[in-house]
Amino acid sequence: MYTISIPSPADFHVHLRQGSFSQLIAPHVRAGGFHLAYVMPNTKPPITTTDQALAYKAELERVDHSTEYLMTLYLSPELTPHEIRKAKYAGIVGVKSYPRGVTTNSDGGIESYEMYYPIFEAMEEVGMVLNLHGEIPSDPEANICVLNAEAQFLPHLFKLHAAFPRLRIVLEHATTRAAIEAVKSCGPTVACTITAHHLALTVDDWSGQSFHFCKPVAKYPDDRRALRDVVKEGHPRFFLGSDSAPHSPQSKSIATPTQPCAAGVYTSAILLPLLAHLLESFGALDKLEGFASTFGRAFYEKPVTTGEAVKLRKVPQGNRIQESYHLAGDSLIPFWAGRSIGWEIAES
Amino acid sequence: MYTISIPSPADFHVHLRQGSFSQLIAPHVRAGGFHLAYVMPNTKPPITTTDQALAYKAELERVDHSTEYLMTLYLSPELTPHEIRKAKYAGIVGVKSYPRGVTTNSDGGIESYEMYYPIFEAMEEVGMVLNLHGEIPSDPEANICVLNAEAQFLPHLFKLHAAFPRLRIVLEHATTRAAIEAVKSCGPTVACTITAHHLALTVDDWSGQSFHFCKPVAKYPDDRRALRDVVKEGHPRFFLGSDSAPHSPQSKSIATPTQPCAAGVYTSAILLPLLAHLLESFGALDKLEGFASTFGRAFYEKPVTTGEAVKLRKVPQGNRIQESYHLAGDSLIPFWAGRSIGWEIAES
Repeated sequence: MYTISIPSPADFHVHLRQGSFSQLIAPHVRAGGFHLAYVMPNTKPPITTTDQALAYKAELERVDHSTEYLMTLYLSPELTPHEIRKAKYAGIVGVKSYPRGVTTNSDGGIESYEMYYPIFEAMEEVGMVLNLHGEIPSDPEANICVLNAEAQFLPHLFKLHAAFPRLRIVLEHATTRAAIEAVKSCGPTVACTITAHHLALTVDDWSGQSFHFCKPVAKYPDDRRALRDVVKEGHPRFFLGSDSAPHSPQSKSIATPTQPCAAGVYTSAILLPLLAHLLESFGALDKLEGFASTFGRAFYEKPVTTGEAVKLRKVPQGNRIQESYHLAGDSLIPFWAGRSIGWEIAES
Repeated sequence: MYTISIPSPADFHVHLRQGSFSQLIAPHVRAGGFHLAYVMPNTKPPITTTDQALAYKAELERVDHSTEYLMTLYLSPELTPHEIRKAKYAGIVGVKSYPRGVTTNSDGGIESYEMYYPIFEAMEEVGMVLNLHGEIPSDPEANICVLNAEAQFLPHLFKLHAAFPRLRIVLEHATTRAAIEAVKSCGPTVACTITAHHLALTVDDWSGQSFHFCKPVAKYPDDRRALRDVVKEGHPRFFLGSDSAPHSPQSKSIATPTQPCAAGVYTSAILLPLLAHLLESFGALDKLEGFASTFGRAFYEKPVTTGEAVKLRKVPQGNRIQESYHLAGDSLIPFWAGRSIGWEIAES
C-alpha cells in the first residue's frame, strides 16, 4: 500500500461564508485534510474591523473547532493604522485587497494604492500580511478584460513591494506565467498562492462549462504550465491557497439571458487528495508537503504542529468524488463531481 | 420618422437544421429581414453530396419559400472532383471545411489540406467557393486553446490562397485582429464573414454566461475593435455571415459537471434590426447596406434583386427583443433576449 504523510496541511486562502452555509462547508476544511484555514473576509457585509473578525472566528469555531482559523480584514477606506495595531494584537493575520474596493478612488480604472499607504506602513511595522487579489477592472477602451487583468496588475505589485520592502505581500491565486515570474523576481517578503483548480484547468475547460468558471479565470495552457513548473520546482514562496468558494448548485449550473452563473470552484472537501492527484499527474508529488504545508507555514510564521500529520493512500482503482454535499437546506457540487482521483485520506 | 432601406439583405452563414426545429427557425431568416441564406451543411448527418443538398434545399423551401437558399457541401474525404462538377451544375455554391473533418488525416493536430487539393482544383475551375471554419484544434502541449486557435490557423489560409489564387475563399466568422489583417493582406479572391454577435461581445461577456458562448469564442476588446473598424471602413471583402445557430433553451442554460452548455448564439429572428443597432453604436450605420447586402452579394456573384428592399425604422423608445420563440415542442431563446434595440423592421 502506497501512502504519503503531510504534516499539518494548511490552506492559505478559503471562503467559509456565514450562517447555515458555513455549517455545511467549514467542516470540509478538516474533511479535505487541512488543519489550518486562512479565512477570506468577503462575507456580506465584509469583515472590516477586529471585532467583526473575532466574532466571525468564534462563529467558525462553534461550527468546527478542529481547524485553526487565521483571520483577515477587508481593505477599505474605513481602516485605520490604529485598527491595524488592534487587529494584530487580537491575532488577526492579514488584510485582503479586492479590486473593487481599491478602485473606488482611482483614475481611469487603474488602481491606486497610495491612499492606503498609512495602513501598509502600520502593517509593515506590526508584521501583518497584505493579500492581493491581483486583477485590475475590465476596461474595453484600454483592451483590459478577464484574460489580461492579472498581468496588467503586476506593476502595482512591484510598486507596493518597492515602497514597503519589509511588508509581507501575497499575490493570491496566480493564473499566469507573467504573475509567476513577477513574484519570483521580488524579494523574500513577496509570496504567491496557487489554487488546486488552476493546476488543472485552462480556458478551454470553462468555455461553456460554468462549474469550471472562477475569477481569476483559468488562462492559456502555457500559463498552466508555468504554475505547474513552479510547484514542481518546489519554490518556497509559492504555496497553496485553494480559493475554494461555495455556491449553490442552482447558481453554478443555470444561466439566464440576464443572470450569468456564479464564479467560483469548490474544492475544500476533497482538497488534499485532489492535490496529490494533480501533483502526481505532472511529476511533483514529492513537493506536496512543501506546497500544501511547510512553505506557506514558513512564510506566515505558523510552524507545523506535531501530531497533525495527514496520511494519504493511493487508490489504484480510483476514489470517486461525491456528486454533491448536503446539510439542511443547503447543498453544494464539488469540483470534478463524479470523477475519480488516485488518492484518498487514510488517517487524519 | 427616421428610416433606412437595405436592398435584398443577404446572410452568408446560417444554420437552419432539419425537421421540426427547422420549421421554427427557417422562417426567421425572412422575419429577421433577410432574402438570402447561405446554408451550412453541418446537419446530422452532414450534407456531403449534391443529392443531399438538393433534398435539403427542397425541405427548406417547403418550410419557407420566400428566402433564397444557397447550398453548401461538407468537406470530407468522400468528396470527389466529379461530385464538385455535379454540385456546381446543380447550383450548389460552396464547400465548407470544419476543423474536425480536416484533422482526420493530419500530423500532430495541425491541419493539412493537401489531401483536398484535387477538390480545390475542381472548385477553382468551376467557380465554387471554399468556406473555412478557421480554427485549429486545441492542443495543450502546443499552447493552443480556444483563444489562439484562429490566429494559429491563418498560415493555412495563406497557403491555400497561394496554391489556388483564383479559388474564392471565405474565412468564416472572424473574431480576431489577426484574422482581419490576414484577409486584408490577401488578394480579391479572399473574403471574410463577421457575425452580429462578435461585433457586440468580448471574452468578458461569455465568462459564466453561456447565452454568449459560441465557437469561435469572442476574444479581447482590441479584437472586437478590429472587427468594428473593418465594418466601419466599409471594406468590400468583409460582410455579414451571422452564424446564427439555434440550440434548445435547456442546452444553452443548464450545465452539469459532465455536460457543458451548447456553443452558439441565435440571431436570425432579429438580425437586421440588431445589425442596425450595433453598427449605429460604433458609427457605421451608413455601412449597413454594404455589410448586410451588396458586399457579400458582389463576392458571391448574387446581385441585388430589385423589389427586395427591407425598410428599417428607428425606435427611439426601444424595440424589445422577444424572450423566446416557440413552435410545437420546440423553443428558442434569442441573443439579447428581453433587451431593447433601437431599430425595427418597418416594411419587408
